[in-house]
Amino acid sequence: MSEPSTAGAPLVAAAPPDRFFGYYPGTVAVVTTAHAGERNLLAVGWHTALSAEPPLYAVAIGRERHSHGLLRASGAFAACFLPFERADAIGGVGSTSGRGGVDKFERYGLATTPGAVLDVPVLADAYLAYECRVVAVHATGDHDLFVGEVVALHHRPDAFDDRRLLDPGRVRAAVYYGRSVFEALGAGERAVHLPAR
Amino acid sequence: MSEPSTAGAPLVAAAPPDRFFGYYPGTVAVVTTAHAGERNLLAVGWHTALSAEPPLYAVAIGRERHSHGLLRASGAFAACFLPFERADAIGGVGSTSGRGGVDKFERYGLATTPGAVLDVPVLADAYLAYECRVVAVHATGDHDLFVGEVVALHHRPDAFDDRRLLDPGRVRAAVYYGRSVFEALGAGERAVHLPAR
Repeated sequence: MSEPSTAGAPLVAAAPPDRFFGYYPGTVAVVTTAHAGERNLLAVGWHTALSAEPPLYAVAIGRERHSHGLLRASGAFAACFLPFERADAIGGVGSTSGRGGVDKFERYGLATTPGAVLDVPVLADAYLAYECRVVAVHATGDHDLFVGEVVALHHRPDAFDDRRLLDPGRVRAAVYYGRSVFEALGAGERAVHLPAR
Repeated sequence: MSEPSTAGAPLVAAAPPDRFFGYYPGTVAVVTTAHAGERNLLAVGWHTALSAEPPLYAVAIGRERHSHGLLRASGAFAACFLPFERADAIGGVGSTSGRGGVDKFERYGLATTPGAVLDVPVLADAYLAYECRVVAVHATGDHDLFVGEVVALHHRPDAFDDRRLLDPGRVRAAVYYGRSVFEALGAGERAVHLPAR
């Protein structure tokens, strides 16, 4: 009982959904898409890699979102990761809709570069972006999971070390806690736990 | 160009999979399962919530993993989140196999409590655990995505504030960078970006 943070109050079990929470903290993917001359972007907190070979990355998007229709139509998206210094944009695009002609790229000062393979804008301020072709869509409750094959990977070479780990001394990832609260990764205590062979 | 971390080297585009990386940093789910008197657990870096109502949580597991068979057979798992102080256990269970009779719970000193609804062990040191019944399995490249309906939510009440956000002053989440490197959340710079209404 010498570690307060691992020997705190015992676990309490409750039935969701009225208390379904805790899926944060985590990074937020800013998902961009374009179709027929229209472009949009939204903040996606529920995202994950799904396969190394072939490389697959997936994002969960509510069916009521404006980007949902664009993504369905175009079959392409980019999952872009912005540093803490652009948490203003992550929070902003997550709270406004692209419906009604609002260009959220301009509104939040987000410059883009073209996709390498697909017709999709990639955020220039990202330290990492997966350019994806949709290969499957799974209905999962109140969201659809768009599974993308990563056809190009965009990254800032100065953000990663020679083992391809994000280097917090160079770029601080934005971690989202929920309720508009972000933290800059990189200032916490660190530990290396090597495999016990 | 006044922000070095957002105006560093320009993005470089490359074709994966030889350079597919960057899906970390993020939390790691320690996934527990049990079937026919056998129990096991493994560390899963690729995981996400997928729906609020019904509450769904999903974990991606390689088909070669010992837990994959147990999970297929039992149709139940718990996604458990350990604090930074137990990063030793996260790293440990991620690097050893439960095949051959190794009990990784004992090996890494992980006490359990019974599931509230299902026959699945829940890690007592977790600050949060989703007890899940498998409702779908999607083949995604070299992994299978197990989609679980959250039938019970276990949490340490002292770990979360009254808005149900993890409170880093009480529990520091373990964030994984890859290559056995963990960071304790909670010491970084924080910001609140409220919606622009």
